[in-house]
Amino acid sequence: MSRPYYKPIADEVEIFRAAYAQRLPMMLKGPTGSGKSRFVEFMAHELGRPLIQVSCHDETSAADLIGRFLLKGGETVWQDGPVARAVRSGAILYLDEIAEAREDVVVILHSLSDHRREIFIDRTGENLKASAEFMMVVSFNPGYQKSLKELKPSTRQRFVALDFRTPHEDVETEIVQTESGVDSKMALKLVRFANKVRGLHELGLTETVSTRLLVDAGKMINAGIGPRKSCAVSVVSPLTDDLEIQETLSEYIALSF
Amino acid sequence: MSRPYYKPIADEVEIFRAAYAQRLPMMLKGPTGSGKSRFVEFMAHELGRPLIQVSCHDETSAADLIGRFLLKGGETVWQDGPVARAVRSGAILYLDEIAEAREDVVVILHSLSDHRREIFIDRTGENLKASAEFMMVVSFNPGYQKSLKELKPSTRQRFVALDFRTPHEDVETEIVQTESGVDSKMALKLVRFANKVRGLHELGLTETVSTRLLVDAGKMINAGIGPRKSCAVSVVSPLTDDLEIQETLSEYIALSF
Amino acid sequence: MSRPYYKPIADEVEIFRAAYAQRLPMMLKGPTGSGKSRFVEFMAHELGRPLIQVSCHDETSAADLIGRFLLKGGETVWQDGPVARAVRSGAILYLDEIAEAREDVVVILHSLSDHRREIFIDRTGENLKASAEFMMVVSFNPGYQKSLKELKPSTRQRFVALDFRTPHEDVETEIVQTESGVDSKMALKLVRFANKVRGLHELGLTETVSTRLLVDAGKMINAGIGPRKSCAVSVVSPLTDDLEIQETLSEYIALSF
Amino acid sequence: MSRPYYKPIADEVEIFRAAYAQRLPMMLKGPTGSGKSRFVEFMAHELGRPLIQVSCHDETSAADLIGRFLLKGGETVWQDGPVARAVRSGAILYLDEIAEAREDVVVILHSLSDHRREIFIDRTGENLKASAEFMMVVSFNPGYQKSLKELKPSTRQRFVALDFRTPHEDVETEIVQTESGVDSKMALKLVRFANKVRGLHELGLTETVSTRLLVDAGKMINAGIGPRKSCAVSVVSPLTDDLEIQETLSEYIALSF
Amino acid sequence: MSRPYYKPIADEVEIFRAAYAQRLPMMLKGPTGSGKSRFVEFMAHELGRPLIQVSCHDETSAADLIGRFLLKGGETVWQDGPVARAVRSGAILYLDEIAEAREDVVVILHSLSDHRREIFIDRTGENLKASAEFMMVVSFNPGYQKSLKELKPSTRQRFVALDFRTPHEDVETEIVQTESGVDSKMALKLVRFANKVRGLHELGLTETVSTRLLVDAGKMINAGIGPRKSCAVSVVSPLTDDLEIQETLSEYIALSF
Amino acid sequence: MSRPYYKPIADEVEIFRAAYAQRLPMMLKGPTGSGKSRFVEFMAHELGRPLIQVSCHDETSAADLIGRFLLKGGETVWQDGPVARAVRSGAILYLDEIAEAREDVVVILHSLSDHRREIFIDRTGENLKASAEFMMVVSFNPGYQKSLKELKPSTRQRFVALDFRTPHEDVETEIVQTESGVDSKMALKLVRFANKVRGLHELGLTETVSTRLLVDAGKMINAGIGPRKSCAVSVVSPLTDDLEIQETLSEYIALSF
Repeated sequence: MSRPYYKPIADEVEIFRAAYAQRLPMMLKGPTGSGKSRFVEFMAHELGRPLIQVSCHDETSAADLIGRFLLKGGETVWQDGPVARAVRSGAILYLDEIAEAREDVVVILHSLSDHRREIFIDRTGENLKASAEFMMVVSFNPGYQKSLKELKPSTRQRFVALDFRTPHEDVETEIVQTESGVDSKMALKLVRFANKVRGLHELGLTETVSTRLLVDAGKMINAGIGPRKSCAVSVVSPLTDDLEIQETLSEYIALSF
Repeated sequence: MSRPYYKPIADEVEIFRAAYAQRLPMMLKGPTGSGKSRFVEFMAHELGRPLIQVSCHDETSAADLIGRFLLKGGETVWQDGPVARAVRSGAILYLDEIAEAREDVVVILHSLSDHRREIFIDRTGENLKASAEFMMVVSFNPGYQKSLKELKPSTRQRFVALDFRTPHEDVETEIVQTESGVDSKMALKLVRFANKVRGLHELGLTETVSTRLLVDAGKMINAGIGPRKSCAVSVVSPLTDDLEIQETLSEYIALSF
Repeated sequence: MSRPYYKPIADEVEIFRAAYAQRLPMMLKGPTGSGKSRFVEFMAHELGRPLIQVSCHDETSAADLIGRFLLKGGETVWQDGPVARAVRSGAILYLDEIAEAREDVVVILHSLSDHRREIFIDRTGENLKASAEFMMVVSFNPGYQKSLKELKPSTRQRFVALDFRTPHEDVETEIVQTESGVDSKMALKLVRFANKVRGLHELGLTETVSTRLLVDAGKMINAGIGPRKSCAVSVVSPLTDDLEIQETLSEYIALSF
Repeated sequence: MSRPYYKPIADEVEIFRAAYAQRLPMMLKGPTGSGKSRFVEFMAHELGRPLIQVSCHDETSAADLIGRFLLKGGETVWQDGPVARAVRSGAILYLDEIAEAREDVVVILHSLSDHRREIFIDRTGENLKASAEFMMVVSFNPGYQKSLKELKPSTRQRFVALDFRTPHEDVETEIVQTESGVDSKMALKLVRFANKVRGLHELGLTETVSTRLLVDAGKMINAGIGPRKSCAVSVVSPLTDDLEIQETLSEYIALSF
Repeated sequence: MSRPYYKPIADEVEIFRAAYAQRLPMMLKGPTGSGKSRFVEFMAHELGRPLIQVSCHDETSAADLIGRFLLKGGETVWQDGPVARAVRSGAILYLDEIAEAREDVVVILHSLSDHRREIFIDRTGENLKASAEFMMVVSFNPGYQKSLKELKPSTRQRFVALDFRTPHEDVETEIVQTESGVDSKMALKLVRFANKVRGLHELGLTETVSTRLLVDAGKMINAGIGPRKSCAVSVVSPLTDDLEIQETLSEYIALSF
Repeated sequence: MSRPYYKPIADEVEIFRAAYAQRLPMMLKGPTGSGKSRFVEFMAHELGRPLIQVSCHDETSAADLIGRFLLKGGETVWQDGPVARAVRSGAILYLDEIAEAREDVVVILHSLSDHRREIFIDRTGENLKASAEFMMVVSFNPGYQKSLKELKPSTRQRFVALDFRTPHEDVETEIVQTESGVDSKMALKLVRFANKVRGLHELGLTETVSTRLLVDAGKMINAGIGPRKSCAVSVVSPLTDDLEIQETLSEYIALSF
């Protein structure tokens, strides 16, 4: 695989390398679209390890992660799930949005995330020791989860944690330009529009403009849609259904482009 | 298949084409009966792609969408679900009323709706890459969902979004005439009656008169029922069970026909 | 089958015929015991179509309606459910008390109730087109459901709707006489007693005296129980457990017989 | 089977016979231990019909009542549940505490309890017509259910209903004497003690002293335990855990024996 | 089996014998550690009947109690559960903490606990009559359950009930001495310490010091741990996590030893 | 296995030995990261018994613990779960975070934790007596559980309980130094920083700084990350998402290093 594009925001690359050297599991904290998934893809490539990703949700069962018996030709055959595959093969296991998972699934991973580095597969009776190259990474969106699901302290305290915040203007402009294909001037305009909206705390938006939304707007512009319309359908409408807020944001669009 | 009838309301056709060119997933937002499903059928025909539709609801399981093993002649045989079929065949996948689906089903689709464009089928261990022609479209009814189920920001922000609003009088008259078979004068009467009711915010209706209801009333008129009775059974009674509101609306019917 | 007894209350027969001519689905709204089920049986006979009935409840699964695979002689064999049978055979499908069904079951029927007139059977991959004679009818009790389960607007607006109200005195007397076997004088007494109780809104009964309860009372009289005792066990006790209300109603019985 | 002992309290035997003559389903309403189950056993014997009883609870599934497929020798074999057996064999079906059952189970029985007298077995596709001798009887405890589970009006109104109240002193004395084996003087003492406690509404007991409790006390006396101790363990302790109420009742015991 | 050690507190042995003579089911009421389970073991030995015990909890299914089909060598084979085994073999069936069980499991046992003395096994269609020696005993902890789960009156009133209270000082001292192996002086000290704490209602403990805790403390003393430390780990810490209450109780320990 | 590193905090080693001598089950109470799991590993080694660990969670089923039938080559084969294996082999069974388990799973273990020392395996009908060397140990976090899940008194009172509190400064410094590899001066700095934060009750943290977090910080320092950054990612970010609290803690870091 070619090296994925990733532009570091702060010292996240060094922290990740140190945690990996000590085989400490990592937690990436930050809002949706802030680049957590891309960062893990990048680090997996840097460290030369395969990456196994799982999107967590509250119907994920332990069997979905660990594995299950399947019926093949009249015989039950064991099939590893993504966690068992990662543990055996020394991959980097990335559990996206871990707080969405049911507590029981999270607890099963406890023995993998401390000095034991092993997982007990109760269906087969196997006590699976992690390969020396194995590392566990999870992501968590504190803003969204605040009043909903929380991670238990006994889970949180197993991870070295990194907070992802909005990148500086020039870094974000470079990202938008590279990923959407617009020129640097349009990319800067998009970032500045985003930064204005990000300052509007009085709007009460659940989440604010992410870099991903700006990249999408850039792509629509590239496909021939005007910048104002592109921002309307790629930034405003995905953010809110509220007509008044949509109108306020349209005024900011009109001022920006 | 012959070209389906669809009368554009605004610039939705251009936006959809641009999103398809960039392979960005789309979200169609608007009330029931506003033509979202017809629009997708029309665009699929325009783009020359097969259309695979799924009505979402809170019992839809991942297996219903992705696929499952069936027992055939003593052997378990894999059967693709509608999502896997769409992904493999490069169809347009339309998930109607996505907010009705359980969160876990929605989360499974995340990797299909970002730069990865792939879905992991855990039961078979297959990492299914989307065909180049594949596109994902979802619909969402913000008015109805407001206080019920909400889409997570990390889901919403994956889509370029289009807001469907009530069409202009002449556009809607043409739609009613074409689909129900009444003449243009009766179609206009029906639309004007609808617009009067749509202005009655004090009635507190959950949803207001959709174009679909007008088409149904037109069809009942065509079948020989008088316009007043047709509006009573096709517009008023489907909208509300409240006797007082029914009487108020009957007065508007009496004034209109 | 001989023609079922049904005495029309208003113009419900013409409305139903027109909706059938246009293949528009129908919703029958009204309290329990108001004759909705009998009306559908009558119309099915009039239109010369078989009738397939389903009592909805919140454990009805999609498989219960659509069909399922059964294991027969080591082979899985598909078995149509009542909806698939109705759709294939061009029957009238009657879903009694649709609001009791889980939302997901209702949503599955959406594609059957609009211009598509088809249903996708995900287990077999079959896209089943409705026979030209097929019609869907549902019932709904707005009084009982008011504060409990509601139908979604996107479901309600698919149906032409008929409100069933209490029939006129002479119509109801004829029904009670014909169905219970009492003479017209006793039938009239029963209807007048019912109409007195129906006016007692201050009693706060969940539902009031239906025609069915009067028919049951008539049958008990026919079996030799006195009219007062018959009304007590067939009307009063089925309506309420409240001792005070029972006594109030007993006084009305004593005045009526 | 020899004739079961049953002492009628009011005109319940005649009402039941009339309802059976008309094949109207019956509902027996009254507190626990008031003799509803014994009455049904007695009536089944009087009418010469077998009796099939089911204790309802909120885990009873439709399959538990109607039937299910069992795997026998590699073949799936259908096995009738108690309802199907009663319907086929023309038995009296007694559903004890129907309000405890899930609504869906109750709704399935609707078609059995109106003019249709049939039940559709979806698993086999069989439309099972009730034998001419079949009758359905249900019981319901209105005092206990008041603030808990309620029967839907569309269910209640299908039944002719009988209210069971406390029998007169001499009737209850005869029952206690006959069933426990104590002499008539001791039986009368037990009944008078019960009637005193039944008047103590200020104690706030969920249910008051039933005839069954008096019979149990009589049996303990017969086994050599003194009347006071017998009442303490057979009447007071089963009724309440509250120490103060236990003491109050002990004083009434001391006054009575 | 040698005779189990049991020291009667009041007339519980005579009451149990009388209930057994009349085949009346029994309910043992009292706090945890008050000796209910030991009493049943003792009575089973006295009456020469085998004892079958079940700890109830809210996941116990009817199949866990009654029995189930197991697949053995391609054939389904019925396996009796503990209730069916007790009923067939004439054992004493002890359902510990019956209020923890789901209502449906309790209701299934109703026909076993009244004059019918039978249980219907719906999976096999067998109507199992209880052996003449069979007796049902249940336990219930009223203090703990007060605001949580309650038994329905229709269940409670099926049992002759015995209240277990704290034994007198000399009885409890003998129990502690016999079971833990400490001398009578130390046993008395432990009982007196317990009685002091039992009087401290102002502490608001969920449950107070049971005889079992004193026996455990005695065993720790026997193993060489000092009396104060033994009471801290065997009595105080099992009772409460509250630091202030722990300190208060430590002062009582210091005064007692 | 080589002797695991464990530094005793108080008299926990003697208490555990005494409880084991008397075969009394133990409960370890304390916050996450206080060394409960390490202590059990150490004691198992000291006593020369194998250790079987289970992380409890609210999806753990009885079958997960006790065992289940698996289908192998057409035959169902019983497979012991961790509890059955521990009971048979005389291991030390450690149930981590027992309060997370469902009540029914906990109740199943009751017969193992009192004088009976046996467990009934209902699926096989086996009454499994514990090996003489078997011991049961559970852990519980009273701070975290306070307002969430509680253990029932009838469960708690089965265990001799040990409270784990923060170790003294010199003990904790030795632990941090030994486990992370930093020198004693840096270890002491980390412990002193922790003790300052532990005194800040006004921050309202769910849990405070555990020894485990200090060990992680030490490891990050060893991997070349500065002490301030190491504390930020290993102590502050795992403890809280609150920006203000993060800043307050950063000031304490700046003062400490």
